[in-house]
Amino acid sequence: MTILYKADPERGKLWAQLFARKAPGIPFRLWPDLGDPASVRYLAAWQPPADVMQTLPNLEVIFSVGAGIDQFDLSGVPAHVAVARMIEPGIVEGMVEYVTQAVLTIHRDLFDYALAQRERVWREMPVRAASTRRIGVLGLGMLGTAVLKTLRMFGFPCAGWSRSPHEIEDVECYAGTDSLDAFLARTDILVCLLPLTEATRGLIGKRVFDTLPKGASFINVGRGPQVIQQDLLNALDSGRLHAAILDVADPEPLPPTHPFWTHPRVRLTPHIASATRPETAVDVVLENLRRHRAGERMIGEIDRARGY
Amino acid sequence: MTILYKADPERGKLWAQLFARKAPGIPFRLWPDLGDPASVRYLAAWQPPADVMQTLPNLEVIFSVGAGIDQFDLSGVPAHVAVARMIEPGIVEGMVEYVTQAVLTIHRDLFDYALAQRERVWREMPVRAASTRRIGVLGLGMLGTAVLKTLRMFGFPCAGWSRSPHEIEDVECYAGTDSLDAFLARTDILVCLLPLTEATRGLIGKRVFDTLPKGASFINVGRGPQVIQQDLLNALDSGRLHAAILDVADPEPLPPTHPFWTHPRVRLTPHIASATRPETAVDVVLENLRRHRAGERMIGEIDRARGY
Repeated sequence: MTILYKADPERGKLWAQLFARKAPGIPFRLWPDLGDPASVRYLAAWQPPADVMQTLPNLEVIFSVGAGIDQFDLSGVPAHVAVARMIEPGIVEGMVEYVTQAVLTIHRDLFDYALAQRERVWREMPVRAASTRRIGVLGLGMLGTAVLKTLRMFGFPCAGWSRSPHEIEDVECYAGTDSLDAFLARTDILVCLLPLTEATRGLIGKRVFDTLPKGASFINVGRGPQVIQQDLLNALDSGRLHAAILDVADPEPLPPTHPFWTHPRVRLTPHIASATRPETAVDVVLENLRRHRAGERMIGEIDRARGY
Repeated sequence: MTILYKADPERGKLWAQLFARKAPGIPFRLWPDLGDPASVRYLAAWQPPADVMQTLPNLEVIFSVGAGIDQFDLSGVPAHVAVARMIEPGIVEGMVEYVTQAVLTIHRDLFDYALAQRERVWREMPVRAASTRRIGVLGLGMLGTAVLKTLRMFGFPCAGWSRSPHEIEDVECYAGTDSLDAFLARTDILVCLLPLTEATRGLIGKRVFDTLPKGASFINVGRGPQVIQQDLLNALDSGRLHAAILDVADPEPLPPTHPFWTHPRVRLTPHIASATRPETAVDVVLENLRRHRAGERMIGEIDRARGY
């Protein structure tokens, strides 16, 4: 029951050391050094190999090394192969940090102060109380929930939206397409933490920006293709939106000619909001191996039909 | 027993409305409309008038409308006049927001990413765990303590330093001059929240920067004159310090020719980290009026000898 790792080779070396220390009984191999392909039951990958079932005929589980699985082409993967996305404390911690920083950057007018610094202008703006700044998070999985629990502590009125109903203490939860407009209409800072699916591709465009209150801001830590990028630029240029903080784009890397790079109301980072940390990720994979062998549902196991 | 307000006139109008609503029995006046000077017992001010005791012979208490009292010249104010600085929830909330944003900005390499955006370079840097980033706060009053309690929740190892011993759960507390070097040597991000006194003026200079680990960063939300500004520039230029986030400067406003404005490793804001909010400040002043009449110690009452 070999586990095969196929992602960034540098991080792979760390995974190999951690497996050797924490689970010396489990054979661990780094792609492309397969050993006997028939013995590979588990694959931890950013992208599975092409023709994955021909290459690894006895594969039982594919672990994504990232929080999403939208990078996987699962069309050739039969239904008996389980797929799990990565849910581990390191990813959650990084995401909470990034989104908290982004929300506070907008809340405390730091886009405007950065522009004032360039002009060498010392000019105060009134400080607005957190209780008057409404945060809305799209996506109430583990990441969205953790982000809301932290933002709530700063005194922001918090709401979340997802496809299915959720309950989170002190967070107004909206569910389903019919409630999306009501959720947007009460949201001053919109945070996208949705998975990329056919239902969310292109979801965030003119209609969404026009439904937010004028002067709202947008933080994207979901996936680039969820946003209609020209609609976002139009909303920023018309003043409909105050600012956008984007950690994801389409495509990635974003070409140097793309207008996001130089827009004064866009902050762009290269998909770094959160990263799997080998130390904690290996613990989750080991726990999932145990669960899979015991016939239990794995952490982050996806519903192949829903796609997340 | 009139209370006289002498600070920003716009905010003064809000104070007047709030007093009229919350304490209609207390005469409230806006400088320079004194009425009978002999009836003024309480002064809420950013700066008391010159010759304050000649102008207001029956003055009993001076309330600062800001968190500090270093802007007061108390040389002509006799010891029987009590002085209170402003400690109210709005100031605390704003400071916690500002410092959290500043710490996360440094922790998540957002200085470097901003420079990369200007160059249109999509380049990831490794995400460092909060557990490896040591925060140190100078000053353990209400603001420093509130800031540490929030930063602790992100998983940063937290320490604080002050003149007198303190105990804060999960925060390593250092006290007194002899322990300053040990505190600095374990601090990756140094936050100054000290009051301005003769003991803290010019405290933060070459010696402090040389005692921090190489590559440490500095956040000043205390007072400008606590820093030897040329030493700070030297430490940034030599790479000794990674970055500085400054909400205070000397003088304020900082002249447009000052090198802080354009330094790529300095973020400058115009003393906006935190501001008194009339809504909550008036509640504290009313509580302090009650305490003063009852002979109790007021919230924020200062020790005239210590100066804070």
